[in-house]
Amino acid sequence: MTNEDKRSELIAKHSATLEQAVDAVKTRKSWSPYKDSPSTKIHGPDKPGAGKAAFEARLNKRFEIDLPGITGWSGEEISPFTQKSLGISYPLCDPEEIIASSTAAMSDWSKVSPGLRIALCIEMADRLYDNNFEMAHAVMHVAGQSYTQAFSGSGPNALDRGIEALAYAAIAMDNVTPSAEYHRQFGGDQVALEKTYTLVPRGVGLVICCASFPTWNAYPAMFASLAAGNPVVVKPHPIAILPMAIVVERCREVLAEFGFDPNLVALATDTVAEPVAGKYVEHPAIQIIDFTGSPRYGGHLERTVTGKLLYTETAGVNSVVVESVGDLAESMRAIARASSLFSAQMCTSPQVVYVPKDGIDTSAGHVSFEQVAQCIVDEIDSIAANPKMAAGIMGAVQAQLSLDVVSEAADMAMHEGLEILRESASYDHPDFPDARTRSLLVISARSEHKEMYAEERFGPVLFIVAADSADAAAEEATELARTRGTISCYMYSTNEVFIDSWVDVYARVGANLTINLTGAMWINFAAAYSDYHVTGLNPAGNACLADLSFVASRFRIAQRRRPIAKTAA
Amino acid sequence: MTNEDKRSELIAKHSATLEQAVDAVKTRKSWSPYKDSPSTKIHGPDKPGAGKAAFEARLNKRFEIDLPGITGWSGEEISPFTQKSLGISYPLCDPEEIIASSTAAMSDWSKVSPGLRIALCIEMADRLYDNNFEMAHAVMHVAGQSYTQAFSGSGPNALDRGIEALAYAAIAMDNVTPSAEYHRQFGGDQVALEKTYTLVPRGVGLVICCASFPTWNAYPAMFASLAAGNPVVVKPHPIAILPMAIVVERCREVLAEFGFDPNLVALATDTVAEPVAGKYVEHPAIQIIDFTGSPRYGGHLERTVTGKLLYTETAGVNSVVVESVGDLAESMRAIARASSLFSAQMCTSPQVVYVPKDGIDTSAGHVSFEQVAQCIVDEIDSIAANPKMAAGIMGAVQAQLSLDVVSEAADMAMHEGLEILRESASYDHPDFPDARTRSLLVISARSEHKEMYAEERFGPVLFIVAADSADAAAEEATELARTRGTISCYMYSTNEVFIDSWVDVYARVGANLTINLTGAMWINFAAAYSDYHVTGLNPAGNACLADLSFVASRFRIAQRRRPIAKTAA
Repeated sequence: MTNEDKRSELIAKHSATLEQAVDAVKTRKSWSPYKDSPSTKIHGPDKPGAGKAAFEARLNKRFEIDLPGITGWSGEEISPFTQKSLGISYPLCDPEEIIASSTAAMSDWSKVSPGLRIALCIEMADRLYDNNFEMAHAVMHVAGQSYTQAFSGSGPNALDRGIEALAYAAIAMDNVTPSAEYHRQFGGDQVALEKTYTLVPRGVGLVICCASFPTWNAYPAMFASLAAGNPVVVKPHPIAILPMAIVVERCREVLAEFGFDPNLVALATDTVAEPVAGKYVEHPAIQIIDFTGSPRYGGHLERTVTGKLLYTETAGVNSVVVESVGDLAESMRAIARASSLFSAQMCTSPQVVYVPKDGIDTSAGHVSFEQVAQCIVDEIDSIAANPKMAAGIMGAVQAQLSLDVVSEAADMAMHEGLEILRESASYDHPDFPDARTRSLLVISARSEHKEMYAEERFGPVLFIVAADSADAAAEEATELARTRGTISCYMYSTNEVFIDSWVDVYARVGANLTINLTGAMWINFAAAYSDYHVTGLNPAGNACLADLSFVASRFRIAQRRRPIAKTAA
Repeated sequence: MTNEDKRSELIAKHSATLEQAVDAVKTRKSWSPYKDSPSTKIHGPDKPGAGKAAFEARLNKRFEIDLPGITGWSGEEISPFTQKSLGISYPLCDPEEIIASSTAAMSDWSKVSPGLRIALCIEMADRLYDNNFEMAHAVMHVAGQSYTQAFSGSGPNALDRGIEALAYAAIAMDNVTPSAEYHRQFGGDQVALEKTYTLVPRGVGLVICCASFPTWNAYPAMFASLAAGNPVVVKPHPIAILPMAIVVERCREVLAEFGFDPNLVALATDTVAEPVAGKYVEHPAIQIIDFTGSPRYGGHLERTVTGKLLYTETAGVNSVVVESVGDLAESMRAIARASSLFSAQMCTSPQVVYVPKDGIDTSAGHVSFEQVAQCIVDEIDSIAANPKMAAGIMGAVQAQLSLDVVSEAADMAMHEGLEILRESASYDHPDFPDARTRSLLVISARSEHKEMYAEERFGPVLFIVAADSADAAAEEATELARTRGTISCYMYSTNEVFIDSWVDVYARVGANLTINLTGAMWINFAAAYSDYHVTGLNPAGNACLADLSFVASRFRIAQRRRPIAKTAA
């Protein structure tokens, strides 16, 4: 089959998926082309074992990938589950050579039809889904996510976000007609022009990934840039390279298979001692930067990058306001589960729970602040006490740094005379006895301790704050969102007047709000196509993943016009 | 009639216009709700006189407008047609008070439906169109545009661009569904959520206008920001305030008439000695900056503004490449007319004409470089020699600075030994004997003089450059576009192979290209809805006016979600 035939087939193969994705982002209903359960009923009996074997075959050797400008090899990954080195080394490349090869690939790529570029990205997503058991192990052993979370959250849930970005890319590019006829009278002349509108990519896109959830924002950034005609350079965190190396490998395979330059997707690895991001950020060929990671480096980019597109997701302080509830245990369980998920190493993890100091109403009567706090602690305890449940929910702690966060918070609480409601402790992982595990530290605080809980503490730390009132709680929560940033906020209230009086304030400060959610769905679950992730309105990030504005600037429009040739009569 | 009724009527009144505008930007056909001729056959016999009288009534007094924080009055406008002061003084306001009032107005405005905000903007445009004869005189006497150009180019042609931006705002906001139902199985739970998506404005928009064509980019910027829920502060150039003061006055009238806070559209005037733009630019409440003006200040903003949206149109070097033509005089007339229009004080004015040094083919045989150059000079002469035509095409020179540009270019040419093919001279304006007029200076140059013609010379200066070949000409023209910026490029060639080999290069450097256009339509006419103005791909500006990316980031999306209340069975 010729490349031409293969490409036409590919567009046809994925057209229904694209159409459904476009419909889903418009209706924002629940939809996915994928299943996010690792059940063998869905995937068959062989895939789990094959995926594990594929992961294990990567260990203790070079990750061979044919990148340009390789100058050396390095790898520093340590599994949070075994606390042993993965032993994988990755190529270190000369940024100039990587960028030169990306730039060289761009000209042909810019001429590929948007429809084909999008179909190629969907094909990449499908291949990654097909190999998702390997990805699950890769994510587990660099990030510390539990097996099920790594499978779903770093697999189909993340791939869906990539396809969501493709849907917006399709909408934005479809909005530009490729040509038009223009007829108008000027003075005595009847003018007839043919106009051609060409989509022009911006330049090379740099995708900087975080260590704890590397694929989550990488897919939307990569696919949005690729769809719009821009090559991408993926810069994983030096302690969590493997998942993105696999992604880059798969994307390059797809590109090569369909006759395209694999250097459209490149990998820029570095070491903790010698970070390379700055060299890419400053390079004039890099015109788009997608950053996920620490507020420190993200803020630096936000304050210094000019003349380039910059999309950031950093972090903030996510809060829960508890005004009143129906069933106390049910609501507190929802909070405890979300706070425990991945040991609070998620951008959506609640960190501060506000409860009125005089307690709250429940369907079983009034309960005190202390009772509410105790109920949260009990629910956390019941997760921690069950090793299988603990392993599935909490996974492992990615880095020693996050354990330091816990001990610093505990020290500070003792120093400031705050009550520690629950000590953080490791739990025994049923499968990995050496896993770096840690359950939530729970501290009781008051508004006067705001500086303690008003900054992101990236690790298993939860503050329960006694607020003067529910209104005071919501006021502080929204003020924190505005000034320190937030990605997800939560509210529990049976009082519609209270809810109504605050929803607009939450919106204004760019805090996405989940109200009264309990049950099996994680309250901090963000569904691609339906939930907008990050508003771009507060310090937790300047972008929304994904909306039209996430893609509409990644290409530009150049036009030409000329008189329509008069045909002979 | 209640405000509610008036508002519903307004939406109904303008819905067809909006619908047609949305269709026009998608099909990019020729369309406008307005007529751009000042003919009394269209506007009736009374409007021209009434408009002139309205303008004259503004002279020699305060421009009374009820702005917050007025600290003094000042005005420095001098008519390029009379070289006398207009005698109008405008309020100088405390930026803090202007911004405080804008911010105060934002909360209510953000809750107004996008459809009503857009209808109000169309109403503003209609009122401005209705008063366009006054606007024509206002623009003439601050900018120097001829009466007909001021009427059309600064009137309906500019208003169309505002409505074009509204069409994109409608498309971008319509893309966000206000609510959705989400149903999905999680574990054993059938989850049903109702989701609400709220459009949230970014903050106050600052619109910085240029002196020579103040309304041109102001309308799209103002309307795009207003439609998305952002108040705007208009900062006119201190020597060309009147047109924008009238615009602000009309917009405030409309807002007040429909029960909205007029401070949603404010005016920030300043003086040449004490510019105020920086105070607004740096203010944290200003979240959107639309800038039209000099590459010097525009470049400063591009290099320093972070954490805010910045849309710029500055300037570049527009070139014509002449490879071969049919009728020589017809093509050279098109170039001469476009170069003479408004004495080359337009962002689309050609400044450099490349002609192969060995001459070109025409339908009447081969002609030499000198013959081509002479033909351009002859066509310019024939415009300048006819005072009525000269007045209509060239208008007046806005500022002494632009005359200095001409004498500096002439001095430099003499110093470098370049041939001056045509001296610049004033022409006698039939209606304004004291008008500051100046026809084109034409200089013959070669590639080695590139530094002379490779920067924007904002005034009536045209270089005719003898290129080694047509390909060498196109190569230099596109390289100039890439490095120095360009807004419009032009090409004349009867050789389809030549055209085909260059169109992609022009697109890649973000140069909009007009090919082989002759006749009554100005080759540098940009039609709203059909022509994209500025690509954002080269140093002439970072924005396109208008496309989806011009509006899609001016608002953000905040969401909330909660379980759907179970209704009793």
